[in-house]
Amino acid sequence: MRLAVDIMGGDNAPEAIFRGAMEAARQHPAWEYLLVGTHAALDERKELPENVNLVFCNSVMGMDEDVRALMKKRDSSIWMATELVKKGEADAVVSAGSTAAQMASATLLLGRIAGVDRPAIGTVVPTLEGPSFLLDVGANVDCSEQQLVQFARMGEVYSRLVQGVERPRLALLVNGTEPHKGNNASRAAYAELQESGLNFIGNMEGRDILKGGYDVMVCDGMNGNVAVKTVEGTMSVLLKLIKQELTASPKRALGAALVKDGFVKIKERFDYEEYGGAPLLGVKGVSVVCHGSSGVRAIHQALNLAASCFDSQLVETLARELGGTELKD
Amino acid sequence: MRLAVDIMGGDNAPEAIFRGAMEAARQHPAWEYLLVGTHAALDERKELPENVNLVFCNSVMGMDEDVRALMKKRDSSIWMATELVKKGEADAVVSAGSTAAQMASATLLLGRIAGVDRPAIGTVVPTLEGPSFLLDVGANVDCSEQQLVQFARMGEVYSRLVQGVERPRLALLVNGTEPHKGNNASRAAYAELQESGLNFIGNMEGRDILKGGYDVMVCDGMNGNVAVKTVEGTMSVLLKLIKQELTASPKRALGAALVKDGFVKIKERFDYEEYGGAPLLGVKGVSVVCHGSSGVRAIHQALNLAASCFDSQLVETLARELGGTELKD
Repeated sequence: MRLAVDIMGGDNAPEAIFRGAMEAARQHPAWEYLLVGTHAALDERKELPENVNLVFCNSVMGMDEDVRALMKKRDSSIWMATELVKKGEADAVVSAGSTAAQMASATLLLGRIAGVDRPAIGTVVPTLEGPSFLLDVGANVDCSEQQLVQFARMGEVYSRLVQGVERPRLALLVNGTEPHKGNNASRAAYAELQESGLNFIGNMEGRDILKGGYDVMVCDGMNGNVAVKTVEGTMSVLLKLIKQELTASPKRALGAALVKDGFVKIKERFDYEEYGGAPLLGVKGVSVVCHGSSGVRAIHQALNLAASCFDSQLVETLARELGGTELKD
Repeated sequence: MRLAVDIMGGDNAPEAIFRGAMEAARQHPAWEYLLVGTHAALDERKELPENVNLVFCNSVMGMDEDVRALMKKRDSSIWMATELVKKGEADAVVSAGSTAAQMASATLLLGRIAGVDRPAIGTVVPTLEGPSFLLDVGANVDCSEQQLVQFARMGEVYSRLVQGVERPRLALLVNGTEPHKGNNASRAAYAELQESGLNFIGNMEGRDILKGGYDVMVCDGMNGNVAVKTVEGTMSVLLKLIKQELTASPKRALGAALVKDGFVKIKERFDYEEYGGAPLLGVKGVSVVCHGSSGVRAIHQALNLAASCFDSQLVETLARELGGTELKD
């Protein structure tokens, strides 16, 4: 296994990315880690383990930089890291940098899988019944019926191969559970998914996301992005308020000390860092997108996820099942 | 103040709706309450206060009934309750029944305000900084740029008149805070809102909903519905888990007893029943939509909200500011 890491991308780059990669490298001494970064970021790193190698780049795509700038930045970390996959020198690439730049690099260098109009980004959502998978979470804001159906197909393959769900239950995330709910694109996709042979169980709504019962939740990238960030934001606000209230008096602080381990368990259960990264589905190679705010553990987990994607032959299977063709270069 | 209530609509109808109306009637003895229901639901109600009057209907629109059935059900509770507003016999109507039937009744009987393509449903969202207003939450799933701008204008008027915010801060709820985020319709609306003279502060994302800082949050009805239900669902799952964990051992149960009042405060703060109903904006009359699961208190609060909407001349102001005309019949 050879994993390329864009050391320069993300709010906590390069330090947290570097340390996350080092953690992963220590966990899997037999795997090779290719750290792509500038001399400024990497020159000082001494005594690297044998399975860590450096690849130097000259530029970085800014988090909010117009993606068109990528055309003139073939020496940027994300482009060069993705190029390692293209050249067959790495099996997967991981980045916490600009998602748009990562998508563009993957699409341009690796190419799209036949049968996929646009790549999608899926993310693991921890639910009461275990991890579920939601896509798209931001790669495509205006989606056609065909795209939604392709997302469903890609999510189904991911759930089966990477999450090990035998017959994933699929649903469309819309504004109600009844079949007539949803917008024009989702209603058309509903009809098509019913005929698809997939285990499509209908429409679901926002309140069902964390309850579980759905292995793959499908929607356009604007809706999915709002949903995932709303879950995160609601948890964060609620836990913050609980902390405030539970330290508001000596009596409560005493009680808080007694229940603290219960909260630790809950936090662990819904910890997004645990799931680390979101695979970019629909390109001819493994590219895992990390949250811009990723810390050490998120990067470590994302590298493990990238390895799982490669190991499970995700890309080959997507090419076969969506495009009806064997993957060729 | 004369308030019409559809006693037959909602999961807990007629009992909870009746009791909610009675609570409101006791709170405001000077206001008149018109309870619209079937003989079966109302005949047994004895010793009604003087300010409660009954209006009998013969049918009910089912929660999931095709809205076209309304055309043949002019004797249904929602149609007749809305008709009281139309005839000038009530100042507002409140229902927890089928939203589609309520919207159709309002649109057909009361008519749309000039300058409004489609009515929208707004809902109060409790945030860390106090109540905010989100629309649309389900009336319109496919929205044009013009509709989003109209939602913004209507929300702004609502925030000013009913919530008492002097200069409401408006934002578009999309998949990121940067100006280029959002789908085609929202990006076009962004440009128009910048020129609108409204206090438009840009794009916001899902994680910002509960934080506060935005008085009016604007999006299409599918996105808004998913967002609001995701907030509800996340809170409900998290509080359920907390309850489980905090009773998992005698030690934790003791701690839980000491912190319990803190949780009561948090629950109160985010209690959706407190905000009761969601006004239907853009029709020539006050029609407040309640959650299907509304209980006694939600109905009571929704009736008070309906009165505030009427008192503040919400409809007249919307007609003036959106249509540029005085409200006429």
